Amino acid sequence: MKFGVAYYPEHWPKEMWEKDAEFMREAHINLVRLAEFGWAKLEPEKGCYDFSWLDEAIELLSRYSIQVVLGTPTATPPKWFMDRHPEVYPKDRYGITRGFGSRRHYCFNNPAFQEATREIVAKVAEHYGDHSSVVAWQVDNEFGCQETTYCYCESCLQAFRHWLQKKYGTIDALNHAWGTIFWSQTYRDWDEIILPAYSVCSGADPINHGHNPSLTLDYKRFASDSVVAYQKLQIDTIRNFSAKPITHNLMGHFPEIDYFDLAKDLDFVSWDNYPEFPKRSFSYLDAAMAHDLMRGTKGKNFWVMEQQSGPCGWNVLSDTPKPGQLRLWSYQAVAHGAEAILYFRFRACRFGTEQYWYGILDHDSVPRRRYKEIQQTGAELKALSDWIVGSKVMAETAMIKSYDNLWSHQIQPHNVHFDYQKLLLKYYSTLAENHLPVDVISIDDDLAKYKLLLLPAFNLMNSEIKVKLDRYVKSGGTLVLTFRSGTRNWDNTMSALTIPGEFSEMAGIEVEEFDSLNRGRQVSVATVVGSAMASIWCDIIKPTSARVIGDYTSDYYKGEPAITVNDWGNGKVYYIGCDLDPSALDGLMRYISDNSGVSPLLARPVRGVELIRKENGGRQFLMALNHNSHEVVLDLKGDYTDLLTKREVHSNFVLPPFGVGILV
Amino acid sequence: MKFGVAYYPEHWPKEMWEKDAEFMREAHINLVRLAEFGWAKLEPEKGCYDFSWLDEAIELLSRYSIQVVLGTPTATPPKWFMDRHPEVYPKDRYGITRGFGSRRHYCFNNPAFQEATREIVAKVAEHYGDHSSVVAWQVDNEFGCQETTYCYCESCLQAFRHWLQKKYGTIDALNHAWGTIFWSQTYRDWDEIILPAYSVCSGADPINHGHNPSLTLDYKRFASDSVVAYQKLQIDTIRNFSAKPITHNLMGHFPEIDYFDLAKDLDFVSWDNYPEFPKRSFSYLDAAMAHDLMRGTKGKNFWVMEQQSGPCGWNVLSDTPKPGQLRLWSYQAVAHGAEAILYFRFRACRFGTEQYWYGILDHDSVPRRRYKEIQQTGAELKALSDWIVGSKVMAETAMIKSYDNLWSHQIQPHNVHFDYQKLLLKYYSTLAENHLPVDVISIDDDLAKYKLLLLPAFNLMNSEIKVKLDRYVKSGGTLVLTFRSGTRNWDNTMSALTIPGEFSEMAGIEVEEFDSLNRGRQVSVATVVGSAMASIWCDIIKPTSARVIGDYTSDYYKGEPAITVNDWGNGKVYYIGCDLDPSALDGLMRYISDNSGVSPLLARPVRGVELIRKENGGRQFLMALNHNSHEVVLDLKGDYTDLLTKREVHSNFVLPPFGVGILV
Amino acid sequence: MKFGVAYYPEHWPKEMWEKDAEFMREAHINLVRLAEFGWAKLEPEKGCYDFSWLDEAIELLSRYSIQVVLGTPTATPPKWFMDRHPEVYPKDRYGITRGFGSRRHYCFNNPAFQEATREIVAKVAEHYGDHSSVVAWQVDNEFGCQETTYCYCESCLQAFRHWLQKKYGTIDALNHAWGTIFWSQTYRDWDEIILPAYSVCSGADPINHGHNPSLTLDYKRFASDSVVAYQKLQIDTIRNFSAKPITHNLMGHFPEIDYFDLAKDLDFVSWDNYPEFPKRSFSYLDAAMAHDLMRGTKGKNFWVMEQQSGPCGWNVLSDTPKPGQLRLWSYQAVAHGAEAILYFRFRACRFGTEQYWYGILDHDSVPRRRYKEIQQTGAELKALSDWIVGSKVMAETAMIKSYDNLWSHQIQPHNVHFDYQKLLLKYYSTLAENHLPVDVISIDDDLAKYKLLLLPAFNLMNSEIKVKLDRYVKSGGTLVLTFRSGTRNWDNTMSALTIPGEFSEMAGIEVEEFDSLNRGRQVSVATVVGSAMASIWCDIIKPTSARVIGDYTSDYYKGEPAITVNDWGNGKVYYIGCDLDPSALDGLMRYISDNSGVSPLLARPVRGVELIRKENGGRQFLMALNHNSHEVVLDLKGDYTDLLTKREVHSNFVLPPFGVGILV
Repeated sequence: MKFGVAYYPEHWPKEMWEKDAEFMREAHINLVRLAEFGWAKLEPEKGCYDFSWLDEAIELLSRYSIQVVLGTPTATPPKWFMDRHPEVYPKDRYGITRGFGSRRHYCFNNPAFQEATREIVAKVAEHYGDHSSVVAWQVDNEFGCQETTYCYCESCLQAFRHWLQKKYGTIDALNHAWGTIFWSQTYRDWDEIILPAYSVCSGADPINHGHNPSLTLDYKRFASDSVVAYQKLQIDTIRNFSAKPITHNLMGHFPEIDYFDLAKDLDFVSWDNYPEFPKRSFSYLDAAMAHDLMRGTKGKNFWVMEQQSGPCGWNVLSDTPKPGQLRLWSYQAVAHGAEAILYFRFRACRFGTEQYWYGILDHDSVPRRRYKEIQQTGAELKALSDWIVGSKVMAETAMIKSYDNLWSHQIQPHNVHFDYQKLLLKYYSTLAENHLPVDVISIDDDLAKYKLLLLPAFNLMNSEIKVKLDRYVKSGGTLVLTFRSGTRNWDNTMSALTIPGEFSEMAGIEVEEFDSLNRGRQVSVATVVGSAMASIWCDIIKPTSARVIGDYTSDYYKGEPAITVNDWGNGKVYYIGCDLDPSALDGLMRYISDNSGVSPLLARPVRGVELIRKENGGRQFLMALNHNSHEVVLDLKGDYTDLLTKREVHSNFVLPPFGVGILV
Repeated sequence: MKFGVAYYPEHWPKEMWEKDAEFMREAHINLVRLAEFGWAKLEPEKGCYDFSWLDEAIELLSRYSIQVVLGTPTATPPKWFMDRHPEVYPKDRYGITRGFGSRRHYCFNNPAFQEATREIVAKVAEHYGDHSSVVAWQVDNEFGCQETTYCYCESCLQAFRHWLQKKYGTIDALNHAWGTIFWSQTYRDWDEIILPAYSVCSGADPINHGHNPSLTLDYKRFASDSVVAYQKLQIDTIRNFSAKPITHNLMGHFPEIDYFDLAKDLDFVSWDNYPEFPKRSFSYLDAAMAHDLMRGTKGKNFWVMEQQSGPCGWNVLSDTPKPGQLRLWSYQAVAHGAEAILYFRFRACRFGTEQYWYGILDHDSVPRRRYKEIQQTGAELKALSDWIVGSKVMAETAMIKSYDNLWSHQIQPHNVHFDYQKLLLKYYSTLAENHLPVDVISIDDDLAKYKLLLLPAFNLMNSEIKVKLDRYVKSGGTLVLTFRSGTRNWDNTMSALTIPGEFSEMAGIEVEEFDSLNRGRQVSVATVVGSAMASIWCDIIKPTSARVIGDYTSDYYKGEPAITVNDWGNGKVYYIGCDLDPSALDGLMRYISDNSGVSPLLARPVRGVELIRKENGGRQFLMALNHNSHEVVLDLKGDYTDLLTKREVHSNFVLPPFGVGILV
Repeated sequence: MKFGVAYYPEHWPKEMWEKDAEFMREAHINLVRLAEFGWAKLEPEKGCYDFSWLDEAIELLSRYSIQVVLGTPTATPPKWFMDRHPEVYPKDRYGITRGFGSRRHYCFNNPAFQEATREIVAKVAEHYGDHSSVVAWQVDNEFGCQETTYCYCESCLQAFRHWLQKKYGTIDALNHAWGTIFWSQTYRDWDEIILPAYSVCSGADPINHGHNPSLTLDYKRFASDSVVAYQKLQIDTIRNFSAKPITHNLMGHFPEIDYFDLAKDLDFVSWDNYPEFPKRSFSYLDAAMAHDLMRGTKGKNFWVMEQQSGPCGWNVLSDTPKPGQLRLWSYQAVAHGAEAILYFRFRACRFGTEQYWYGILDHDSVPRRRYKEIQQTGAELKALSDWIVGSKVMAETAMIKSYDNLWSHQIQPHNVHFDYQKLLLKYYSTLAENHLPVDVISIDDDLAKYKLLLLPAFNLMNSEIKVKLDRYVKSGGTLVLTFRSGTRNWDNTMSALTIPGEFSEMAGIEVEEFDSLNRGRQVSVATVVGSAMASIWCDIIKPTSARVIGDYTSDYYKGEPAITVNDWGNGKVYYIGCDLDPSALDGLMRYISDNSGVSPLLARPVRGVELIRKENGGRQFLMALNHNSHEVVLDLKGDYTDLLTKREVHSNFVLPPFGVGILV
């Protein structure tokens, strides 16, 4: 198995390189990522290239049997380039230029930057395309990071108009699709079209400035497509010189780029995983779902290109990972499909923006607890390599993530507290805490293999998806819908159908009216699995053929249906019309999964523990991860052997704090 | 009585129009507002006008006996116009242009836009000026909405200088009035004068940037005057072609335009009323006071041009109005002086920024609970038309609202928690909850007819007003003043007189010193009606001729007077030197109203219930509105008949949840 | 002793001047500050000077034996000047110009403004340089106030490049010092260097935009130096015409200018002291430490150029100072080293931004409580003048304040809740509440005279300072270090040494790892003086030669050392590895001060009371200040006479609320 670090030889005196390589070898490291921010060092002056330092570093590392992932250095165009092409700087929605001094200071649609990209990438790919040490390419670095997906410059304006012309063909078609008749916003020509930049704003809507929701959704799609196209430009350039696999390091739940689209052109996906981040709450489920989404983008295993190796942060520091957590998180990655883990970074940098980003070594190069834990992890994973590489997660449940829906929800989130990504995580967490492995996939993926399909808040809808889901359920699948399903057309206009629109027939219901719960209001509900409280939203349901399995017990709609289930062909469609409290949702989802024939991996769930069933070439195994800082006992059915301790396990399996078990 | 909706035929296929008209007729709708955002449809190219679609719609509606209020479409200049005149876009205080994509994207002072306004308004007025269906004109739409009152463009700068020249005559007079000697801000010429835009700011004052308070107040007056002048331009244009009454839809408590000024040029006032709004707390008293202010702007009945018809919001939705509330709010409007109610809107729009703004029909055109409730309301109001149209609120109490004072308070609010509008609402609420109807009027209005006059926080003061109030009190009126009265001159400089300045003599007091209460401090007070807590502000009073009816019982001014009353001629002047807690203010205001001969409509007030006494051509009647979600019993004196139920009422009158009674 | 007010004769009719002077004389006022905002009045047109009004005012005041501090009027360049030189306006980090209307609307580095400064200062200095009434000069007013230290205009860019060239000599040296190899930020020429303005930002770092920390620190140093250089320009100009002492009014804890640098060129320091400020919490210790810092900037007594004289604020008002507080705060100033106090201001202004800034007279010129209290204070201080002028604070303890460290902490504050200035105040307060007088000094000052030296969070470090501190401790001094000491080099890069870097040897420890405590986490600690809770930060210490006097009792580092002490030569070095709760820190600092031979002035400390031991020409005296609103009794050792009451004091000394004692 590949086990590595991000390494920046250019940051350190050459005298240190050899010792660094020794440190790596001792920690079982066999792979480093190099050069993804090295443009100024590779091309210090326009047209003057210098690969000698990188050649030397790769050569030295190879002597320690360490291979290389090579980054294209486009995330940091040097100052000499920017001074020649100041038009490359992105512009914010107020038209203000974002200048030099950080990274990603370029517009994806700028022709001069695209040309410069072709040149530098070609040079690097030409030089290293067939190098025996190079095992893969990383294109650029963390597309969209630091709010760089959205730019409002002249290049973007022209590109947006072109993108729209290609999509709609005629300006009349665009006007009709967007409903520009509203507020006299009719466009007579492509040249009249705007970007959704700063406009007359309102305290009620400081973000979107009241722009047409269909225009705004198209802009978000366009911006995502611009990133995909820019990545494609790099991939095509590399392919002229190299046959090595190409990846990009994604960012888990990052919401601005459609990762299903971005993944299509890549040979494999990798991502950057920092569970403990300053100013962000910690949840192992957040990382778990991100892993599953990354696996889902291509429906196959992935790499973790950057795995947290210590406390981190730009200006403030996160909590320090506790003893055992670095190892635990590495196994969590493996459990969810990682075939390679590279820690970020080898050693904390002594200068620059990320000098607080701790590596497996501190600034003083003294190997301490974190180094030793990673060393141990490296040794273990090496021994387990046959089990890990090529293994598959055995999930009977899938959850759909839709970026089009995400963006629509961002533009008009229905309720102040509604958040599509949080709703997905809430449903995902409920399943994970019941030890039910989940695939996170696109609506375009094959659904036939799942017994249970979750489709939370799928509000943008069209007839193709209706046909697909209809077929899925009629063939015996169980589909779970929630409030806000089918309320809109795919162009972000409202559906003319009675809510839940295209879902109405299969769900056997109509939504008579709804109530958006503001100012902390809660509504009580009686469900088939006990009483509950609802927040954020309540649909008041009129069943046409569905059975009621939950109704409201307060407010003016007391007694009205809140949750229903409908038999549809050989399957079932559940409709959950309100946002249930976590405990009630837990009970309800267990009820639904039981009724859909999905079997949990543990009869009595244990909080804070992940259980993932995997298989590899016919051999099944169970990975158990204890995210608690205390010992737990799992009441397993059957007899196992723990591959890590080599001990036999009968029913009661004891996992130490932050402990891991791999049971066959 | 006029009963209507906002309708946008241009948003819907013509095939739907006939059915829509039938829906309207069934709901007793006899009026629609049309075309106020229709510029791009009426003039799709410069100089090419198309009235055919609107002619057709009006014609069809007339066949269903539905009349028309016609809007001038200036709130949404089309893209083709803006591309020719980009200088029309407003600029924010940082000099950044607010571009296309929302509405109201124009500067009131821009000459090109004023010219274009004249042209399009003339065309529309010429075409429909004598049309038999057209009963009134609505000029533009919601002036100032979405923070569009204040613009900092070159046109505004020039217009401001001109406005000042007209006001002050000489630059020396301006320098003297503003006190520009402070901080060397002397202007030598009109061309040196600035707008109060972005300047060297301070965390202590991010809004006003430390600008001269007199300059800032004049800028706010100028901006309000600019709107009034722009409206006048439209009115004059329409009058060349039409004799139909002209209105504009105001926005209740909106603070940026002096609505007394704006109302002067209108034949009648109308306003847009949304009691349940997302991200805003709900209070029936807020709407009640807004109704009274709207009536007060011209001292006569008004229209509700937009009345909430369902949940609403741009990106998030409000709570859904509960069964009975749409009807209740309609009666509330009528009780306070509405002679016409138009719901916004007929049907929720399927596209554009307001697609979450629910009409009396949902997106699917299915008539549901809200449609039926409005249908019932329409039938009832039709039967009550004779009572409603021409009726008058019988108020013995008046409260002064002063926009000049409001703006002065905004510029320097004395205390972090001081808010003039909230203080007015607090006093208004205290009276309303004691069932004492109030007129909300200007200081320029006739005061003689009121027994009790409230003048909260009237800090800008001049000698004309002193003479007027002196006459009012000496003739037997009761005047209630509060802390911060008379501290300033009308030009927003501080008075050289001892506080409360011009009020000192009639109040019989001097304010020895004051204490601004920060960081949650509260001070205890003993009053003639019990003990109380004061927040925000404490005046320490030295009576000259007044009697003390409240003194402080804590802090270093323990024992000093807090509340006084002074006999002045045949009347009385109360001075309330601190911000009392609501319960204490309730007691005190009842004490004051009792002593001023104002009789409450109910001996024992019932919370959440409005009682309004009205008269129409000599006939008196009582409107009772229950805003509670529970039943209430009112202990009325005397015998009545309820016009709605036709039942007789003796003493104990039962009102159901959200119920209404009209008692004669 | 000098006792004065800020006075603005230009704001008032000449008819009032004589009466004003009488008021002043009655209050024992012998000094006024004049003309610091008078540019437009002194030079109403380019090149036309008018000193007549100021001559007249000074002449009149001199007849009442009132002398003058004269301000140079550069804080408010007039509109006629700005219209000729709009490039003088400062630009914010977004490149937006901050326009006219407030004050300080100039860039320190603008050549045109520097030239204009030379002209106006020369004219004023020439006219008044030898005037018998003028006792001192105040240069400009409150440098940096209203966020004006940092400007991002073209002049600043050029000046910054020049400043860097002078500092680094070669561009390679700069690149190496900053570590620009990180993120390809290498500069090839001085002309490529940027200001740390708006760049690609991140929610994680909206302030610094992820700029290189070494560049940002140099920019902050450059900005501070720019102010110092601009002040020098004025001082040099004045010196051509006048030999009178020159000062500037500093702002206590203001963080943007290195006040040790700024003080160097001044003859004495003065500062503006507003203990009660709106939107800021009140603490007498805040003012106490600011006084001590002001004294420390030059190591000698100072003036209070503006002392609060009433409620104040721009748009909202602070609490009103309670009876006794104005007098108390005056004595607090004297206790900490003030030799002159000027109240701001004589009378509240009737116009302009500061019309809420209350003087010793209100707007109506009626002498009230505040006037009388200041009158009493003036009489008392006059009698005490011999004791006050030339007196010295007798401090055995010093605390280091380092602006370089402050700025480094601002750029990367380690933890969301870490604040260098608050940490200093926390340590200062602990000492002050134990009645241990403190000098607040620079690391460049002489340390030998102190028994105890506090060096909180001194993270930037170099070898010169190491040598100096080494010598201090070895000679018998006690040094107190905290977490985050010695983590960085002086150029704001991370140290390659094991934490605490240069301090490691003398502290006898290494920091094995650390934990940044986020999301409200707390860790328990057992110390030599009892149990405690730690927030924000925990260093996990490995003693090399130190003794442990506190260890953690929770979390994964339970049992590990948290606080240590090391014998070093004849002295001791304490290392406090975590942020202790105030009560525990109180105990620990008492323990440390006891062990370092520093004797507290009171055996049993009394909260809210300051005790300062002073000496003057060999005579010692004790100043006791009761900041409580209640009476306190101090258990003094020995017999005293209170200079204020002339009473003898034996052991139990009673201080009334807000009372003062001066005991000899």
